[in-house]
Amino acid sequence: MKGTLTQNGQDTEATMEDVLAALAGNDFFWLDLDDAATDGTVSELLGVHFAFHPLAVAASEKFAQRPRLVDYDKFVYLAARGADPKDDGKSEVHCFWTDRYIVTVHRGDCPAIKSVRDRMKQHHMATTNAAPQLVIVYLILNALVDSFFPVLNDFDEKIDALEDDILKAPTEAQLGVLFDMKRSLMNMRKVIAPQRDMMASINSGISDVPGMTDEAARYFRDLYDHLIRLADLVDSYRDLLSSVMDTHLSTVSNRLNVVMKQLAIIATVFLPLSWLTGFFGQNFSFLVTHITGVGTFVGLGLGTEIVAVALLFMLFKRRGWLGGPSV
Amino acid sequence: MKGTLTQNGQDTEATMEDVLAALAGNDFFWLDLDDAATDGTVSELLGVHFAFHPLAVAASEKFAQRPRLVDYDKFVYLAARGADPKDDGKSEVHCFWTDRYIVTVHRGDCPAIKSVRDRMKQHHMATTNAAPQLVIVYLILNALVDSFFPVLNDFDEKIDALEDDILKAPTEAQLGVLFDMKRSLMNMRKVIAPQRDMMASINSGISDVPGMTDEAARYFRDLYDHLIRLADLVDSYRDLLSSVMDTHLSTVSNRLNVVMKQLAIIATVFLPLSWLTGFFGQNFSFLVTHITGVGTFVGLGLGTEIVAVALLFMLFKRRGWLGGPSV
Amino acid sequence: MKGTLTQNGQDTEATMEDVLAALAGNDFFWLDLDDAATDGTVSELLGVHFAFHPLAVAASEKFAQRPRLVDYDKFVYLAARGADPKDDGKSEVHCFWTDRYIVTVHRGDCPAIKSVRDRMKQHHMATTNAAPQLVIVYLILNALVDSFFPVLNDFDEKIDALEDDILKAPTEAQLGVLFDMKRSLMNMRKVIAPQRDMMASINSGISDVPGMTDEAARYFRDLYDHLIRLADLVDSYRDLLSSVMDTHLSTVSNRLNVVMKQLAIIATVFLPLSWLTGFFGQNFSFLVTHITGVGTFVGLGLGTEIVAVALLFMLFKRRGWLGGPSV
Amino acid sequence: MKGTLTQNGQDTEATMEDVLAALAGNDFFWLDLDDAATDGTVSELLGVHFAFHPLAVAASEKFAQRPRLVDYDKFVYLAARGADPKDDGKSEVHCFWTDRYIVTVHRGDCPAIKSVRDRMKQHHMATTNAAPQLVIVYLILNALVDSFFPVLNDFDEKIDALEDDILKAPTEAQLGVLFDMKRSLMNMRKVIAPQRDMMASINSGISDVPGMTDEAARYFRDLYDHLIRLADLVDSYRDLLSSVMDTHLSTVSNRLNVVMKQLAIIATVFLPLSWLTGFFGQNFSFLVTHITGVGTFVGLGLGTEIVAVALLFMLFKRRGWLGGPSV
Amino acid sequence: MKGTLTQNGQDTEATMEDVLAALAGNDFFWLDLDDAATDGTVSELLGVHFAFHPLAVAASEKFAQRPRLVDYDKFVYLAARGADPKDDGKSEVHCFWTDRYIVTVHRGDCPAIKSVRDRMKQHHMATTNAAPQLVIVYLILNALVDSFFPVLNDFDEKIDALEDDILKAPTEAQLGVLFDMKRSLMNMRKVIAPQRDMMASINSGISDVPGMTDEAARYFRDLYDHLIRLADLVDSYRDLLSSVMDTHLSTVSNRLNVVMKQLAIIATVFLPLSWLTGFFGQNFSFLVTHITGVGTFVGLGLGTEIVAVALLFMLFKRRGWLGGPSV
Repeated sequence: MKGTLTQNGQDTEATMEDVLAALAGNDFFWLDLDDAATDGTVSELLGVHFAFHPLAVAASEKFAQRPRLVDYDKFVYLAARGADPKDDGKSEVHCFWTDRYIVTVHRGDCPAIKSVRDRMKQHHMATTNAAPQLVIVYLILNALVDSFFPVLNDFDEKIDALEDDILKAPTEAQLGVLFDMKRSLMNMRKVIAPQRDMMASINSGISDVPGMTDEAARYFRDLYDHLIRLADLVDSYRDLLSSVMDTHLSTVSNRLNVVMKQLAIIATVFLPLSWLTGFFGQNFSFLVTHITGVGTFVGLGLGTEIVAVALLFMLFKRRGWLGGPSV
Repeated sequence: MKGTLTQNGQDTEATMEDVLAALAGNDFFWLDLDDAATDGTVSELLGVHFAFHPLAVAASEKFAQRPRLVDYDKFVYLAARGADPKDDGKSEVHCFWTDRYIVTVHRGDCPAIKSVRDRMKQHHMATTNAAPQLVIVYLILNALVDSFFPVLNDFDEKIDALEDDILKAPTEAQLGVLFDMKRSLMNMRKVIAPQRDMMASINSGISDVPGMTDEAARYFRDLYDHLIRLADLVDSYRDLLSSVMDTHLSTVSNRLNVVMKQLAIIATVFLPLSWLTGFFGQNFSFLVTHITGVGTFVGLGLGTEIVAVALLFMLFKRRGWLGGPSV
Repeated sequence: MKGTLTQNGQDTEATMEDVLAALAGNDFFWLDLDDAATDGTVSELLGVHFAFHPLAVAASEKFAQRPRLVDYDKFVYLAARGADPKDDGKSEVHCFWTDRYIVTVHRGDCPAIKSVRDRMKQHHMATTNAAPQLVIVYLILNALVDSFFPVLNDFDEKIDALEDDILKAPTEAQLGVLFDMKRSLMNMRKVIAPQRDMMASINSGISDVPGMTDEAARYFRDLYDHLIRLADLVDSYRDLLSSVMDTHLSTVSNRLNVVMKQLAIIATVFLPLSWLTGFFGQNFSFLVTHITGVGTFVGLGLGTEIVAVALLFMLFKRRGWLGGPSV
Repeated sequence: MKGTLTQNGQDTEATMEDVLAALAGNDFFWLDLDDAATDGTVSELLGVHFAFHPLAVAASEKFAQRPRLVDYDKFVYLAARGADPKDDGKSEVHCFWTDRYIVTVHRGDCPAIKSVRDRMKQHHMATTNAAPQLVIVYLILNALVDSFFPVLNDFDEKIDALEDDILKAPTEAQLGVLFDMKRSLMNMRKVIAPQRDMMASINSGISDVPGMTDEAARYFRDLYDHLIRLADLVDSYRDLLSSVMDTHLSTVSNRLNVVMKQLAIIATVFLPLSWLTGFFGQNFSFLVTHITGVGTFVGLGLGTEIVAVALLFMLFKRRGWLGGPSV
Repeated sequence: MKGTLTQNGQDTEATMEDVLAALAGNDFFWLDLDDAATDGTVSELLGVHFAFHPLAVAASEKFAQRPRLVDYDKFVYLAARGADPKDDGKSEVHCFWTDRYIVTVHRGDCPAIKSVRDRMKQHHMATTNAAPQLVIVYLILNALVDSFFPVLNDFDEKIDALEDDILKAPTEAQLGVLFDMKRSLMNMRKVIAPQRDMMASINSGISDVPGMTDEAARYFRDLYDHLIRLADLVDSYRDLLSSVMDTHLSTVSNRLNVVMKQLAIIATVFLPLSWLTGFFGQNFSFLVTHITGVGTFVGLGLGTEIVAVALLFMLFKRRGWLGGPSV
């Protein structure tokens, strides 16, 4: 077992005896467990000693849970997740709390838990008469939710940069980047949307959270507002990515047009000219013997070519093909 | 008739007499029928001896039913389906239960029914005071629902592999694969969405399920949560498949650009050069007789060509056409 | 007036006197009118003798009505439609029923009405204590709703066949077929969706249908379930058709790539070779007089060409252009 | 001031005195104002003499209002719009009505108002015990709503014609037509959808309309049904227009394929043949002096060409390139 | 601290003493703060002296807030935003109001605040018995909401102009413009939609706004109607932009077709003709010596070419390739 036991403002490394003593006592405590230690003691502790419901214990063992709040008779189970760009599960926290204590389960080096320890002393909620369990739950949720904002702000800039890149020069690598970004957005959406709905059901009173006070409810409503904004952001970025994809296709088609117009111009110039030279290259004895003299050469050999080029130039001008590389 | 009669923890091959005896008795029993036996005894048994409603009996005869729960006065009819990649109907189970017994109908070698038999002894729900019928319904639903997860996880990897393949080399075969995957997702959606809605109506109390206890409700809520996740997965994969389709089109267009640029370069190089050789191949006697000597040949014959190549090289450089196969 | 009067299980050709006599009596009767007879007697009969509401009579005169149920004080008006691939209005039935009798209006040779006559004797509902009017309404609706299933099953196969065709050889005719199929689906949707919603409002008790019993309600709920499945099918086919359209575009683009690559190969092979022959075809006296002898011809004339072909072959190999017609 | 005052079935040109007299009296009257007369008397009349709420008066001054019903304490304000293909505001009517009189405001030659005058004498609603104000409101709404049907039926045919045109020969002008049709649909949707929602809120009793009777409600429900159908039509046409756009793109791509295949065939035939003639056109003295005689010419000059054509013909046959202009 | 204190109709530069005196008094006052002054006095004033809730004070410090209304026990916090094309935060106003006074916070030169000062004297609401705080809130919201209309009207024209431009000549720059317009619409949507929902919850009574009277509610309902129209406009423009994007792609493809057809015509004309000249340019002594005389030259040299051109002309005519630049 690896974890931290917080009691009376003191953080101590959690040992089985201390935990059982705290559990037997009457005071508030916070037990934070690191589930990466897979010796099975965690689920034994939760299932046997804390006597949490087997479904909740089973859920807390498997990470990548859909965020949700389940109200069991004697305790509340909450799974929450933050931005997890590396997909290592370090931004997922499972909370169990009763009217006396709280147990949190995370994996590895969870930044949200660390920030909660840092903020616990000075936070406003300390003065809200809310139960300390709820303060901890709020702080964890707050840290997890706020972890999405920098990630999504990055997205904003990456989408603009990608659009600019594509308009400069569309490549296939950009298509792969687009797909990866779409996938990331979808993964974030799968985590943000249920948390938003969970918070909505807490705010509207559908989900009953023990220890909630009017004042604490304001903080959860603020969190709800953040989650709405996050979900809106994800949706609008998804929309923008489709636009970027369309831009890619249109730009590629546009470039093709440019290349083809140049090919058409080259072919339209040199195919007739080549035919002219071919014509005077025929071995008809009439041509070989009668078309003689410098004047004939200049008149027929150069003259026809120059006339052909002039005619083509006029044609291109009328077609508007001489206006540079734009289509 | 082919089936299994489970009574007092004993599984026996079901015979008409045993079933009628069980029906006449007062104890709980589970009758599991294999509907592949099409001798008509099944519908006779359900319609006449069990006196189930004709609509329910008619539904249980035709497989590929839309999953749903229908509450008749004296019994409940439930049609549930799992992942069925081979489309052989083996993952569909129809349940009829009253406050005393349960009858299930499946086709062939149904893995969900088998897993229920295996799990029945040790499952937690055994201790939930829930009616044994409901425990069986839960276990069947659980097995059916969980059968989607490996299938959808496969999808996840297949989509990524397809995207990578397309970026490497887009082929028409991939379009067929994409279409088949889209179709599979749609078929799964048609099965998952109504089960999710059915579970929602059970959880919210709109559909009244006899024998439901508070504790059993938790298990059904857990199932509901799984179904929400499945539906979300199906939606997000559908979205990704559209992206993959777009990637295919864009990649193909991109490749076309590459090929066309190379064709344009080749034509732009050799059409002018060929015209030059054609020019000096004309049979004007002036050319044939006056353009003599090695110097003239080197100067006019080779020199003009080299100059032309140099000019084209400069042109390509300015256009940025020499940067490899990227567009 | 053309129609059938059903009274006491007897079908007779409806005459004005018989209808007025039945109306004046106290027994249940079913009057089925064929509205194709446009002598105005139908609307006079409904408006004056039956004294139905003018809005309902006006609606029953114009076919192609949006399916709906309207509850007037003394009678109920219901417009229902089945699959109508020929768009001839034969699958539309308008029903007026009171607590004593029922009047149906159709056009021409309506298969649903015929099937109702056939099924009326043996149907289960006969034993449901439901009013006979409601039994007839149910049977008509059932026949109309079931008429969609074969049409939609055809669609399923047609979509798969079209996808296969397109992957084999995309043509413009397929685009027309796609558009027609999309249009058909839309027309079916416009008929199915309001019937589904109508049935939902009947089932939830929002629309009050006189003569409805608990047992009859089960049959209407079954109908509702069929309509949900139909609406789901239509939606999923619409989705598939978009995929087929995308496949068409991608396949056409793919084929273009194949053709262009072959053109590029041909041009890349023969433009340089032609230049070589052009080079040695120039009339420089140096070439004509100094490049003599078989060896020179073989070395310069054939050799350079063979070297050029070999170099191009190596280039193509490195580019992966020799792997068959795939792109 | 320009308008018509209808009192006791008499239509008279409205003068300020008559209007004030009618207002001071106790009888029902209908004042219909033409707002195109912009001398400010209209808003003065409505604001000062009728004492309507300033917000309602302000709304009635600006046309292109979002259709809506607003219930002020002493009167009801309703803005309604019909099909307006010329966008001249003639199909917009604003109504103010109290429990005694009704005032309507329109612009110019409004066909709906005219049709109401024509229909007022014989309409069924006259016998519905509904207040005459409500009868007028219904008739105006009915005329406005019905004005959409011919416009949308035109759309139906135009979409089919456009699809056929595109399959025959796609042009850029069609893209402009498509865009304009999409825009028109959107504008209609912006007018139809709020009217449908307004009617829904009237029917469900959310919006309270003074003078509404059970019988009058049937007529408004009928109107609601028409608006639902209109909104469905607009949505399905929008969907079809997207399909037409897709068809355009696919057809253009298809045509490109046809052209390119022909270009590829031409190039594949003549580039090798030209090379052959070029080969024998080289000035190697060996060729000039040794390749002599008619047989040599026929064998090498004509024979190689014929062999080349035969080989190409076989290649094309195997590739399936000889099957006409289809791709 | 920089701001304006309005008391008894007098605007004075706000000083700390005046504000504290007003706060200590019993009369209504409006304190308008400019938050660009970042000396921290604003948040100190709001948090300490006005004792607003820390969450509300924190929100008012950060601009780019999601528009919302939060009801604290003793005051209401409202964040509202107008059109902000320059993205400088000048069109964002945060309001705090109690039953006695109102505090507004903006940044820089806010046009909405200025217009409120201008309109405050003559506005109708002054006579509505509504609390002056609510009048100010309404006027600010009104000014912010109305600021979207000119921006969106510009959009309307820009979209039409863009469509026309694209049909004339599609360029890549237009793709960038399209993307920027889409982004702008999305940003507006993110501001308009929550304000619409906020207004809906005010109108339906879900959000309780202190000081609201029946008469004031009419004005807020009018505002709600404007926001619905704005949201509809944004949605329809987004839809139109997708159409414009599709038009771009189709036009580019169309142009490609035109260019390719011209290239195909040129190649189809000159490749066969060049082959013919090449044929007669071969150095077979038979050709050189036997094909002599003017007649032979005219017959074979010119005649074959003319025949070839005539045949090609007939072919093009049959293909319909001579109908101008359209495809």
